Order: sequence, then structure tokens, then C-alpha cells
Amino acid sequence: MAATETLTAERILEATEEVLRRYGPAKATVVDVARVLGVSHGSVYRHFRTKAALREAVTERWLERTIVALGPYVEAGGPADERLTGWLTALFALKRKKAGGDPELMATFQVLIGENSAVVDRHEEHLVEQIARILEDGHREDLFAAPERDFATTARAVFDATDRFHNPAHAADWSAPDVEDAFTAVVSLVQRALRA
Amino acid sequence: MAATETLTAERILEATEEVLRRYGPAKATVVDVARVLGVSHGSVYRHFRTKAALREAVTERWLERTIVALGPYVEAGGPADERLTGWLTALFALKRKKAGGDPELMATFQVLIGENSAVVDRHEEHLVEQIARILEDGHREDLFAAPERDFATTARAVFDATDRFHNPAHAADWSAPDVEDAFTAVVSLVQRALRA
Repeated sequence: MAATETLTAERILEATEEVLRRYGPAKATVVDVARVLGVSHGSVYRHFRTKAALREAVTERWLERTIVALGPYVEAGGPADERLTGWLTALFALKRKKAGGDPELMATFQVLIGENSAVVDRHEEHLVEQIARILEDGHREDLFAAPERDFATTARAVFDATDRFHNPAHAADWSAPDVEDAFTAVVSLVQRALRA
Repeated sequence: MAATETLTAERILEATEEVLRRYGPAKATVVDVARVLGVSHGSVYRHFRTKAALREAVTERWLERTIVALGPYVEAGGPADERLTGWLTALFALKRKKAGGDPELMATFQVLIGENSAVVDRHEEHLVEQIARILEDGHREDLFAAPERDFATTARAVFDATDRFHNPAHAADWSAPDVEDAFTAVVSLVQRALRA
């Protein structure tokens, strides 16, 4: 890659993901990242002061893609109950695709996720906020009843109740023959709970 | 232990659990079990034809304790919605106690559980049947609405929706400060979904 291109944080993160995919989280170094970019490792450190900061940023970028992909279900028009089912279905599909489509990259990010629990907590909060916004819309549309405490608490409960279908700890179960039926039954339970 | 006592399957299983606790699942042998009982290993094999069969039986016995402990919530009188919350709360408490109180035995049984997925499937079916019985009672008492498909499907959905609070894969989260609130919110969501 030409070093003459401006070295942006985004370019460094892209290269870091590539290096992580190639060498694995145990072996990947900042020097490898610099080599891929054709720059000195000092140039990389000017953007990310430590290797840990770089790994944290790449984890955040990877998780952020999910938030972006789910955005349409939050922003779009249409009845909130359908958008909620769409959001939950899309999240499950994204997680399954990540787990099944590129198991090595998934394993790599499982290691990074273990190292960066604060990033994961913030990511979960973003996901819960997306649910909360759909719940508020649904309440305004008279589709969903008022929450028992507040939208944030109910949104968290919806997120937790569907944990089996987005938490990578359950990835091994996602190829079971009855997983679609199980997912549909839980979503239907959640919808019944929310209904006005 | 006196070999003159009748050698029952139950006594062998008790000794096996003791041996597993002492030596761990990788090292425990049938010879160790026989030694604890003061009998020949041939006597043990007359009850359990293989080491694998013995390990399966001890796993089943360990899981069965949970079913027995939860029995009162299924059999007892009282409103079904309260019994359901009681059942879910007791299951969470049992699992937390197992995970936190005796981490070595828990780790041992996690290995055995990995070896005996059919036993675990049957165990989950038993738990789901217990929920289904409470749901049927609740419907009879006009506390719970008719299930969308059938009691078994709804019971499975209740079990799956509360997975974060009984699946040992989540044991690391069970000491988080907000876990009680998260549990209460999910149970409240489930109760709203079932309400007549």
C-alpha cells in the first residue's frame, strides 16, 4: 500500500484487522501493521499510543458495524412492532453470519472482546438504546403498552431475553435444526409482553 | 466404606461424585471408585458396563437434583404466576450456588456435561415440562392467556428467554452488581407476555 496516501486512523484500523486475520491475535504486532501500510511503527503510534489502544479501537470498529447495519430498523418508518422483529432478526442473522461465515475472524474478535470489556459494555448499551427508540415509537403509535419502569429497562429486558440469539457464547447452538423455531417463539413472547 | 453393605447403583454414583471431586474428571478412574467403596472394579462394572455409562449416570443424578429441588413450585398450590416467578428465581439461585459455592465440582460437571449432551437435552426437557405444567395451571386459573401454539412451545420460550439466568455459559456475569435487576426485568417481561 502506498505510504504517500495520508495515514488516517481508519487506514490503520483496516490494516490492523487484516493483520489480525492473517496472524491471529496472539502474534499480530504493531510492526506488522506498519509493514502492511509501508510506514514506520512510529507513524502508527502517533495515531494509537499503545498496542492496547489500537486493539481496542479495532474492536470498537468491528462492533460498530453491527450498530450501523441495524440503523435502518431504528430510523425507518413502518409499525414499531414489525421493526422490532426486523431488528432482532437482523441481529441474529448478523451474528450467525459472523460466527459461521468467517470463524477465524470471529475467534480473533472473541479474544479482543475478552480484552476490551468496557468497549463491549458500551456496544451493548448502543444496542439497548436502539431497542429503546423502537419501543418509544411503538408506544407513541399505541402498539406497545407503557413500560413498567422505563423504556431503557424494558429495552434491556428485551435484549437479555433474546440473549440466546445474539450472544456469541451460544454460537455453537445456532446451527441446531430447531433454532429458528426457538427464536420465533421467543420473539413472539417478547411481542406479547410489549403489546398495548 | 464397608464392602459388606449392599453395593447399589446409588452408592456407586455417590462414590463416583466423590472421586470426581477429588481427582477431577481427567484423572478419575473406575478403579478409584472401586477403592473408595472397598470392592473390586468388576463389581462396579456389573452396575455400569462402561466408564462412559458411569459418567453419564453421575451427570444425570447431578442434574436431577435441580428437578427435585424445583418440584415444589410445580406441585404446590398458590397462584401459578407466583409459582412461575418462584420457579425461575429458585433455578437462578440453584445455578448461582452451584457455580459460586463449589467451583471445582461445577468445573468437573461442565466437563461431564460436554460429554453427555443427550443427558443435558433430556434435563432441559424436564425443566421445560415443569414450566409447561405451571403454565397449564395458570391458564386453568385464568391468570395466563391461552398459548399462541401450545404450552410446550411457550414453556420452551420462557426457558430460552431466561437463559442468561440459568445457563452456566453465563456464570461469569452472575456476580455483576446489576444482575438482580436484569433478572427481575426479564421475569416481569415474561409475566406480561403470559398474562390473561
